[in-house]
Amino acid sequence: MADQTNAPRRLTRKGQETRKRILGVAADLILKQGVAGTQIDEVRRSAGVSGSQMTHYFDDKHTLVRDVIAWQAENTLESHRHPALGRLDTFEAWRSWAEMILERQTERGFRGGCEFGSLAGQLVECEPDLRPDLAAGYEQWRDLFREGLRLMRDRGDLLPTADPDMLANALLAALQGGLLLAQTLRRAEPLRDSLRAAVAHLETFAATPLSRED
Amino acid sequence: MADQTNAPRRLTRKGQETRKRILGVAADLILKQGVAGTQIDEVRRSAGVSGSQMTHYFDDKHTLVRDVIAWQAENTLESHRHPALGRLDTFEAWRSWAEMILERQTERGFRGGCEFGSLAGQLVECEPDLRPDLAAGYEQWRDLFREGLRLMRDRGDLLPTADPDMLANALLAALQGGLLLAQTLRRAEPLRDSLRAAVAHLETFAATPLSRED
Repeated sequence: MADQTNAPRRLTRKGQETRKRILGVAADLILKQGVAGTQIDEVRRSAGVSGSQMTHYFDDKHTLVRDVIAWQAENTLESHRHPALGRLDTFEAWRSWAEMILERQTERGFRGGCEFGSLAGQLVECEPDLRPDLAAGYEQWRDLFREGLRLMRDRGDLLPTADPDMLANALLAALQGGLLLAQTLRRAEPLRDSLRAAVAHLETFAATPLSRED
Repeated sequence: MADQTNAPRRLTRKGQETRKRILGVAADLILKQGVAGTQIDEVRRSAGVSGSQMTHYFDDKHTLVRDVIAWQAENTLESHRHPALGRLDTFEAWRSWAEMILERQTERGFRGGCEFGSLAGQLVECEPDLRPDLAAGYEQWRDLFREGLRLMRDRGDLLPTADPDMLANALLAALQGGLLLAQTLRRAEPLRDSLRAAVAHLETFAATPLSRED
């Protein structure tokens, strides 16, 4: 998304690569140091680009942060395009989703939390003009969940009373809250319990009783 | 908690009141502008105290932020001491809890999100020495939930297989994630759906089938 919507169209392929590299460096620094603690000059030095290159791609810190939001939103969607997850349209896929997130977070010692959610938590009140960008990121993510849940309902895996909107909201909120708690406590349990509860809630809408193979 | 643990013991009652007033002003500014966007001098001016008074109560911004964390943790616990919630040890109390949070957030247009969680989201990575304070706040909150759930299990309202630790984690994560999403989207649905799903999950552990009066 970042590249389609915000990148200047005139960039060469090499220019696009440089821009992406800067975005990656900025995203990493922001994850470790926070938005307020990350200065554009540090990003420039870490990315190994000159001041004029930096200005060529990003007018100022505000532009950079806005593009980091779009970049992390895209990365988040991309991380769901894993073969084991398919279209998130089976109970098994949702269980794999929960376990995969838990594994990833455990590997990194629960540091950094949610790449996207941490931006939302830092920016939503103090940078009002970035709130629509943050909201758009969450909406795309929620749409991805809802699409899989709709397929499950249309196929008859979920009861007709199952509401894909509500279930998608509950799953995304469980993920965001579980990540923040696990990040703060540096422990798996809050994330594990939160995700498993949300998936168990989804399973209560199964049209036919579930075995572990469903 | 703030007053017992961090406040200098020599403070007179008037001193304690001034200190609390400064903390309240700081907490409000931080909620609106973020930690990084709130300077100690602005807090001082908004609270109407002199520079020497400010230094008397808070050595520096770091001390002030640490005390705001403790203050918001205490406020959070306090907000659960509402007659309708009792000890959060009935299904009805949990349903009231969810609706009460939803009402409060709706009244304020979903601005500000979670007073405590927003501090966690902003500070957990970039202020490592404050992480234990944030973790302690979440643990007290989780303990409050767990205590009510334990009472429910010990009383036989919940099945013996119900795990108060896991349920407490899931309820707290649902709240934190739902608040962050509702705050970002300025909409009730994510919070409503998240809380209702978490309470519905709790209800699946009811020892006897529930009517709406339980």
